[in-house]
Amino acid sequence: MNVVRVAIAGFGGVGRATASLLFARRERYRDVYGADIRLVAVCGSRSGIADPNGLEPERLDALERVRSGPEFIEASGADIVIEAGPSDFRTGGPGLAYIRSALSVGRDAIVISKGALVHSGPELRALARSTGALLKLSGAAAAALPTIDLIEHSLKGCEVLEIEGILNATTNYLLDAMMNENLGFAEALARAQAGGFAEADPRNDTEGWDTASKLVLMANFGLDAELTMGDLAVEGIQSVRAHDILTWRKERVVPKLVGSLVRADGATRAAVGIRTYPPGDPLAHVSGKNKAIRITTDAMGETIAIGSGTEPLATAAAALKDLEHILTARAARPARGSGGAE
Amino acid sequence: MNVVRVAIAGFGGVGRATASLLFARRERYRDVYGADIRLVAVCGSRSGIADPNGLEPERLDALERVRSGPEFIEASGADIVIEAGPSDFRTGGPGLAYIRSALSVGRDAIVISKGALVHSGPELRALARSTGALLKLSGAAAAALPTIDLIEHSLKGCEVLEIEGILNATTNYLLDAMMNENLGFAEALARAQAGGFAEADPRNDTEGWDTASKLVLMANFGLDAELTMGDLAVEGIQSVRAHDILTWRKERVVPKLVGSLVRADGATRAAVGIRTYPPGDPLAHVSGKNKAIRITTDAMGETIAIGSGTEPLATAAAALKDLEHILTARAARPARGSGGAE
Repeated sequence: MNVVRVAIAGFGGVGRATASLLFARRERYRDVYGADIRLVAVCGSRSGIADPNGLEPERLDALERVRSGPEFIEASGADIVIEAGPSDFRTGGPGLAYIRSALSVGRDAIVISKGALVHSGPELRALARSTGALLKLSGAAAAALPTIDLIEHSLKGCEVLEIEGILNATTNYLLDAMMNENLGFAEALARAQAGGFAEADPRNDTEGWDTASKLVLMANFGLDAELTMGDLAVEGIQSVRAHDILTWRKERVVPKLVGSLVRADGATRAAVGIRTYPPGDPLAHVSGKNKAIRITTDAMGETIAIGSGTEPLATAAAALKDLEHILTARAARPARGSGGAE
Repeated sequence: MNVVRVAIAGFGGVGRATASLLFARRERYRDVYGADIRLVAVCGSRSGIADPNGLEPERLDALERVRSGPEFIEASGADIVIEAGPSDFRTGGPGLAYIRSALSVGRDAIVISKGALVHSGPELRALARSTGALLKLSGAAAAALPTIDLIEHSLKGCEVLEIEGILNATTNYLLDAMMNENLGFAEALARAQAGGFAEADPRNDTEGWDTASKLVLMANFGLDAELTMGDLAVEGIQSVRAHDILTWRKERVVPKLVGSLVRADGATRAAVGIRTYPPGDPLAHVSGKNKAIRITTDAMGETIAIGSGTEPLATAAAALKDLEHILTARAARPARGSGGAE
């Protein structure tokens, strides 16, 4: 039995859900991969707990103060670090230091928060390649919706020509409320905030930055592009007016906030803005917490994926899908730390 | 550069499209996998051509008589056999002998025709495991629509609870014509046959057997079940009457021929029949040549995939996706012919 040590940095709802699911699947990991998966450390921003022999679930309710930070995770001896901390694409957030620390010594990283990847994606990608570490980000790219692995696996060999994605639940909710219940943007937003469907400061969602972040991750990690947020033309839904709503209703189309990407002549152009869909298009029916992506390739035409899934479980499952892909890849590669590129 | 020899058995439209795409991607295979892919043999039912150094495209228009059959392919020295012959799930068709021959000596098989897999799936699966050969079937399962690889890769680690699939273009066409153009089944069928959307003998499609075949493949190869066609309750669309159409119109639902599968208590129950969808369900909008699958898992909720793609290119691309997955797996495994299970 091959012992594989896992640490989780960032231990809020998603980090805890990931730990729970990891425990629930231990027998699967043994049976399928011959891997004895041990959770050797977890930490939030100010507290954590570690045990080189592996933590049992009950110990995760007794985090110890000051046990946190990249050095703490590094000292745990983890082979794989799952990063699930708060996300900030303008600074990289606390995740950036954890991910850099792991990758730089050849540890594999499973990243759930988008911030660091959006802020420093190409740098982290290059760092992983230089040390032979694996860098996976299904949880960050769009959780239960398959995106990068659809490109990398299901469409393998095909050239991606175009991607469009409905990637943000808050804007789905707001546009639906404006279209179907005659609310203005401000009213719809107030109701969404009251119901827990929008943040107190909703601009990351409503102004399109969350969608833009996910699009940048797909481009850089799925298509090997080098986009930064500044390369995107980003428009949100905050300036939708009653007149727009009336026009769309009259035209019998459904508006969605869409991240889109076109590749031509070796260049990748990406943008975020409202697109409208006729009712015969499956994307017209992606609402609420559902997310969707349409990928157009040279040889397979259009492939649509639509994902739902209850959070935080779905995101935890996306991260642990990455874990299984790493276990498969680890079984196939030379001993780790050898410094070879993947 | 690692030389990889490929043979294609079954050389109609799909086989030829696969050869063309293989040639078009040779540079990709060199760059990405360090693999010099050579097409060393192709054959139809009565003629073929082989060259151990690799055939160039122009030679595929000069097939030689009598050069056909499993021994011919075996003698070509192919490492990977692509099977693209006519499909017959009642006998296994000519593909069965080709696939058995390849797998039994440890050659990898990429299967495009469903017949042999439906007829002898568990036997072929066991044969592949016993010799360490890989058996891939994206082209057979539903071509450009990701099905098995969605289960195996994008939903990895999750337990599949339920699958429903809209998997047959002919029944999509007929049901749409009956719903939207007031045609009876016989009229719709006559028009579909005239337009090339239905076979002269359409029963394989209209009575649900094509859908059932694809469902059996997903169950046996995606979920490790052991279903035979006899285990399925199969109803087609041939007995849809004007009264049904009127009821569905009145209820504002859309009928589709659906293959469905439920797993509970270790058992897999599968059936084919008409299901109706409200217009807010993305599956209501899967029509014409589009296919779709909805997979419900314990941890990721519902995942829908919808595929289009122009034939025969999309099927060729599905088969060559399998080829790339094999190239990846070959790079990771011990020298072939060692007899180890995968």
